[in-house]
Amino acid sequence: MGDYMKVPHQIEERSFAIITEELGDKTFPEDIGKIIKRVIHTTADFEYADITIISPRAIESAQRAIQGGAHIVTDTQMAKAGINKAKLKKFGGEVRCFMADEDVAQKAKERGITRAMVSMEKAVEDSNNRIFVIGNAPTALFELKRLIEEGKAKPDLVVGVPVGFVGAAESKEALESLDVPYIVTRGRKGGSAVGAAIINAILYMME
Amino acid sequence: MGDYMKVPHQIEERSFAIITEELGDKTFPEDIGKIIKRVIHTTADFEYADITIISPRAIESAQRAIQGGAHIVTDTQMAKAGINKAKLKKFGGEVRCFMADEDVAQKAKERGITRAMVSMEKAVEDSNNRIFVIGNAPTALFELKRLIEEGKAKPDLVVGVPVGFVGAAESKEALESLDVPYIVTRGRKGGSAVGAAIINAILYMME
Repeated sequence: MGDYMKVPHQIEERSFAIITEELGDKTFPEDIGKIIKRVIHTTADFEYADITIISPRAIESAQRAIQGGAHIVTDTQMAKAGINKAKLKKFGGEVRCFMADEDVAQKAKERGITRAMVSMEKAVEDSNNRIFVIGNAPTALFELKRLIEEGKAKPDLVVGVPVGFVGAAESKEALESLDVPYIVTRGRKGGSAVGAAIINAILYMME
Repeated sequence: MGDYMKVPHQIEERSFAIITEELGDKTFPEDIGKIIKRVIHTTADFEYADITIISPRAIESAQRAIQGGAHIVTDTQMAKAGINKAKLKKFGGEVRCFMADEDVAQKAKERGITRAMVSMEKAVEDSNNRIFVIGNAPTALFELKRLIEEGKAKPDLVVGVPVGFVGAAESKEALESLDVPYIVTRGRKGGSAVGAAIINAILYMME
């Protein structure tokens, strides 16, 4: 193992240089490139360069919200674990995941729906929960769409990156049909680590 | 959104059916297939069918350790968050990640090495930490290799799936050269979510 490998900062710099090199002719506006490269850094999967779609002003909208102390809601503990909470905290925000809450489990059971859906209902009760990261449950994204359409939520960014074979792609199409700032990974790919990487890329741009 | 989508159990069954179908001629022994399909379920990336390598008796070795109450050590909070801790707890084990420990940060700084390396040294101090999941840091895997070679660790399973462009592939090759039960994803791909999926597949087989 080379000595340089013991310095995480250098490993990351070298990784991003390799990613940029291998992307070759595929270039992006600076901010968009930072997000896409961080997702590739997290997955080693260059397909994300083609499937990651960022709506106009999504990054700006998210950064303004974070500057204002907005909280971030995730649909998994993994996405919450992956987001740089120390960086977010500097602006006053925190990361919240309601999936393991007792009242969420109870309501989901009573109503025969997913905890992910109930967790979105709970999330929109606090209007300072302004950024949503859905890395797992298409039902969370469909539910958030409903809440947005009913005027119960007006997010500053929805990171819609559920991974999977049943409903994931469709839930992202549904998100893209809405008039909200969004970032999606079209098709089946995505996941909690991808969602966290997108948020971290946005946070690191704010330094 | 179809009503079936509100039942997570049915979504998962349908997802695995799609994965099996799309794998086509690629079939695996039952236990190995369960691990590979769960990784694909987590990533929507069929390349894992080709790069996931499971050493002989690795699954059996891990299950015996878990039955005996072994703990699982991860190199990220994300992998820890992703592992089904309730299932593991039934056997008496818990998931441990030392990356955020104050003493680990302190020692890493003093010695100019990564926290991931120090966290492995700390992990092997308790001989009941018998399963290791490395989803992020090649340095953790290289360090674990050293500890194994020096006789300071004798794991019942090492899940070596660091993702990345600098050292990740090499660290997995190093793991494969050892005489320990291992599961790796050859090359650059992997990650905390992949590591957690592998452990969960092993846990779900034990039901």
